[in-house]
Amino acid sequence: MDITSAQNPKIKKLLTLQQKSSERRKEHLFVVEGVREFLHCVGVGYEADTLFYCPAILDQHPDAQQVYELAQKVRSFSLTEEVYAKIAYRESTEGLVAEMKVQEKTLQDLQLPENPLIMVLESVEKPGNLGAILRSGDASGVDAVVVCDPRTDLFNPNLIRSSIGAIFTVPCVACSSQECISFLKQNGVRILTAQLQDSSLYYDTDMRQGTAIVMGTEATGLTNIWREAADAHIRIPMLGRLDSLNVSVSAAILLYEAVRQRN
Amino acid sequence: MDITSAQNPKIKKLLTLQQKSSERRKEHLFVVEGVREFLHCVGVGYEADTLFYCPAILDQHPDAQQVYELAQKVRSFSLTEEVYAKIAYRESTEGLVAEMKVQEKTLQDLQLPENPLIMVLESVEKPGNLGAILRSGDASGVDAVVVCDPRTDLFNPNLIRSSIGAIFTVPCVACSSQECISFLKQNGVRILTAQLQDSSLYYDTDMRQGTAIVMGTEATGLTNIWREAADAHIRIPMLGRLDSLNVSVSAAILLYEAVRQRN
Repeated sequence: MDITSAQNPKIKKLLTLQQKSSERRKEHLFVVEGVREFLHCVGVGYEADTLFYCPAILDQHPDAQQVYELAQKVRSFSLTEEVYAKIAYRESTEGLVAEMKVQEKTLQDLQLPENPLIMVLESVEKPGNLGAILRSGDASGVDAVVVCDPRTDLFNPNLIRSSIGAIFTVPCVACSSQECISFLKQNGVRILTAQLQDSSLYYDTDMRQGTAIVMGTEATGLTNIWREAADAHIRIPMLGRLDSLNVSVSAAILLYEAVRQRN
Repeated sequence: MDITSAQNPKIKKLLTLQQKSSERRKEHLFVVEGVREFLHCVGVGYEADTLFYCPAILDQHPDAQQVYELAQKVRSFSLTEEVYAKIAYRESTEGLVAEMKVQEKTLQDLQLPENPLIMVLESVEKPGNLGAILRSGDASGVDAVVVCDPRTDLFNPNLIRSSIGAIFTVPCVACSSQECISFLKQNGVRILTAQLQDSSLYYDTDMRQGTAIVMGTEATGLTNIWREAADAHIRIPMLGRLDSLNVSVSAAILLYEAVRQRN
């Protein structure tokens, strides 16, 4: 075994990367866990920096051989089961944790088709919600997800997990609201803001042209900069007694209405 | 203080009720936490059996007076902060935990309008998913949620929490798949099963008549009894690379398509 103690500085660095967005930003690295997630991430073009694997667990996995082949090309360390238990976030992570190199996309990197469908999220707070929205974004074939003035980084472990890998398959950009609005206007993309006041029912609103669906936080909704930039305001009718939908559920309903209209 | 030790048998019973569905079934009681959830539950007709409150915390709440008035009518015990910390599941539960009397509805108790919209879930496993579906069910104005052959009871604390109270506002029945199919056929409700094979796109399927949308588990889908009972099979198109939507997100997309068509 290369590493037999959780006090090893490489293990300490890995734990800090898992826990702190400031460390991820500084090192330009993030962490993925599990064989499936790792191969997925590599498959869409991310580069591994360092692999940590526990042979006793990894060897059980049908794709272990593929991992070992990739491990020969980068820095790799074998761990005892005790050390692995310290770094594994989930119970069944298949004996593999990898530090991957961050790839940051900007708005200018986006390659959009004619009449794109874009999901914009302002100040989204919970990594789990953003991950769930990315998962629905993948399923609905959204062309990009833009996170404006984010309060979480895009490589938060909870986000990666809840996206079940969609953070790697869906083009995702972080920027300021002002940058995003300028970009959408320049590209002739209609801005539809999800808000209750002065709004039309979402299914009465045309989404067949280039469309950005913009949502705010569950707590405070959208800021004025977006309300004023909007070409139309849309709302999901609330027919019950609680007056509340989860933000990721709302996002999926709106995205699939665009799918329906474009079919 | 009435109760100053977490070893008090009443506290032990409460903890067992929170943790074990067998105990909930035996005692015909379930547990709600927090002032908002409790008042909500009472507001829709549930009866409290026993209240446990921590004055030091409850007194901070704007609705404390209302709770104290209700507390005079049922068995109530004041707790020290130490004991309260043992029974509170969440951090901010406002100093109140209540044992409530179970109300079990059957299919025959359902009061359905003409052309009802019913959500049917077969063998749903995760209480959190069922709670999230109930929340969307409330928002979309579903007439009933029927849980067939459930692997969780309807008063699981995670379910109550994730439903944010929808378990109390949405008529919800547990029964066998066979009972449910007979009920739907007798009432002329069309059965639309969500499945990939031999299916039409959900938005090409008429949901304006009496409609039951039937979904299985994320892992194994629906059993044959439902596939054979179906009047139509429907699917949500998967346009991404991951081929997966969360079951509660899928449920919301299908329910809101019915809302759209019926508008």
